[in-house]
Amino acid sequence: MKLEKVTIVGGTHGNEYTGPYLLKFLKEKNLLTKFSTFETNLFLANPKAYEKNVRFLDVDLNRSFSQEDLSNSSLGHYEADRAKVIHQLLGPKSNPKTDFILDVHTTTANMGVTLIIVDNNPFNLEMAAFVKSKIPGVSILYNPMAEQAGREGLPFLNSLTEHSIGIELGPIANGIVRQDVLLQACDSTLACLEYIEMVNNETEIPVGNEIEVFEKVKPVSFPLDSHGNIAAIVHEYLQDRDFKPLHKNHPVFLKLDGEVVLNQEEETYFPIFINEAATYYLSIAYSLTRKRLLKIRK
Amino acid sequence: MKLEKVTIVGGTHGNEYTGPYLLKFLKEKNLLTKFSTFETNLFLANPKAYEKNVRFLDVDLNRSFSQEDLSNSSLGHYEADRAKVIHQLLGPKSNPKTDFILDVHTTTANMGVTLIIVDNNPFNLEMAAFVKSKIPGVSILYNPMAEQAGREGLPFLNSLTEHSIGIELGPIANGIVRQDVLLQACDSTLACLEYIEMVNNETEIPVGNEIEVFEKVKPVSFPLDSHGNIAAIVHEYLQDRDFKPLHKNHPVFLKLDGEVVLNQEEETYFPIFINEAATYYLSIAYSLTRKRLLKIRK
Repeated sequence: MKLEKVTIVGGTHGNEYTGPYLLKFLKEKNLLTKFSTFETNLFLANPKAYEKNVRFLDVDLNRSFSQEDLSNSSLGHYEADRAKVIHQLLGPKSNPKTDFILDVHTTTANMGVTLIIVDNNPFNLEMAAFVKSKIPGVSILYNPMAEQAGREGLPFLNSLTEHSIGIELGPIANGIVRQDVLLQACDSTLACLEYIEMVNNETEIPVGNEIEVFEKVKPVSFPLDSHGNIAAIVHEYLQDRDFKPLHKNHPVFLKLDGEVVLNQEEETYFPIFINEAATYYLSIAYSLTRKRLLKIRK
Repeated sequence: MKLEKVTIVGGTHGNEYTGPYLLKFLKEKNLLTKFSTFETNLFLANPKAYEKNVRFLDVDLNRSFSQEDLSNSSLGHYEADRAKVIHQLLGPKSNPKTDFILDVHTTTANMGVTLIIVDNNPFNLEMAAFVKSKIPGVSILYNPMAEQAGREGLPFLNSLTEHSIGIELGPIANGIVRQDVLLQACDSTLACLEYIEMVNNETEIPVGNEIEVFEKVKPVSFPLDSHGNIAAIVHEYLQDRDFKPLHKNHPVFLKLDGEVVLNQEEETYFPIFINEAATYYLSIAYSLTRKRLLKIRK
């Protein structure tokens, strides 16, 4: 297998500035010239949302890439049309014009460097294991949605290609760049590209056949008042404890009248995206995952 | 002197969620019933920007309260009109319907709890000194703009009254609430109200006659490229060092081509609002202040 065309995407969400700045940084520091086996395309996905410093104008671009939506010309939202333009440029899903997509995101949650995998093929899993072996502390988040929906059903930009990864970095506020986070983005991106170079050169990859992932289970809503408004905040005990075990009866919310809400889940899950700004409008406070070992090569 | 009507304002900037949640928290936890000498009005200043999770829709509401703009009916921006409605409700500047305004803001910069004073009358300064004596680590920022423009020239919401304070809390991302920051907002607000209660009861205030403030000097721009776009990020050395001395030749920016930019100021200033999201659109990276001792009672 040889990957010849690689696409690095920033600004899929317009207020997550690290991605767009990473694209400039990679280019202006000439960091890509050391890779000789593939071409790299640097792509700003939602320039209008980036210019306006908003996640999206009409709908979430990173939920606009299901085959059904891509085939529906009557949606008319800015991002629904933008997705079709990107699909034209990088797709189609069945035979894409790029061999690999890396999509860079940030979060207000304390998730450090998290690699997100939406297609659990051996390439993606091995890349994640390789990056984790190079950069200590990296977490791997696996979204099993593709197991039901298939890649054509997935709404994510990087579901355009079979070989893809998402990088999620945090905590960082929207609308700013921090040097520490930019350098983490840069290091993890370069590690992904190094992996591709090794695959292209048929170099043996020094990782085992098992990889620990956090598999997404379900989102958790904020407590709501009778008007459907958020009526609580994330409890300080839970704040910043992304990827840490959450046991039954541990505090998860503080209601605005002072009442503490305890976790009622019987299973000990691992919460992620705790107090993420982007999901307040959906009243989602965090998501639950469980740890799972995946075989890289079946 | 007796203050009978007190207004606590949140959501002057719609994406700074701590203020609006503080208003609900104060009400639902019944935290205001212990004050018997004044009435408290809880006021959400920009509900539309809060609903949309943006700082403002058209223009910055907290720059819309100069007497000149308040008298200009032809501006037509949403916030220009909203300011006139608030002016009608709480003003006019010469004879306001409220005796005191406390305006709650947040920042992505590492500014802890900062009290902002725009009118250096003895009441405001003594309140700041009292809050600082109760809450260790509080910084006091003094904006000397009123010394030139007079209160009628000031564009800030809390320039509607002579007696006023701003509370700035950070670091926190926009669009979220954190329990630690909410409790800081609550504690500092209650300390302000306690001061008013003491003044109303003619209780002696246990503070001296001098107060250390950081006086705003000037903003500092990001380095720009030939198209006027931001071409650097805040250097990791400077990041999070709000209110710390910044010496000549210390690193302040990292250009995207890797060049480090050094501070050229001869005077050792104290930077604030370092890497604040709200000023990227103005290409402002941070502001400089100098330390100054003010006499509370002249």
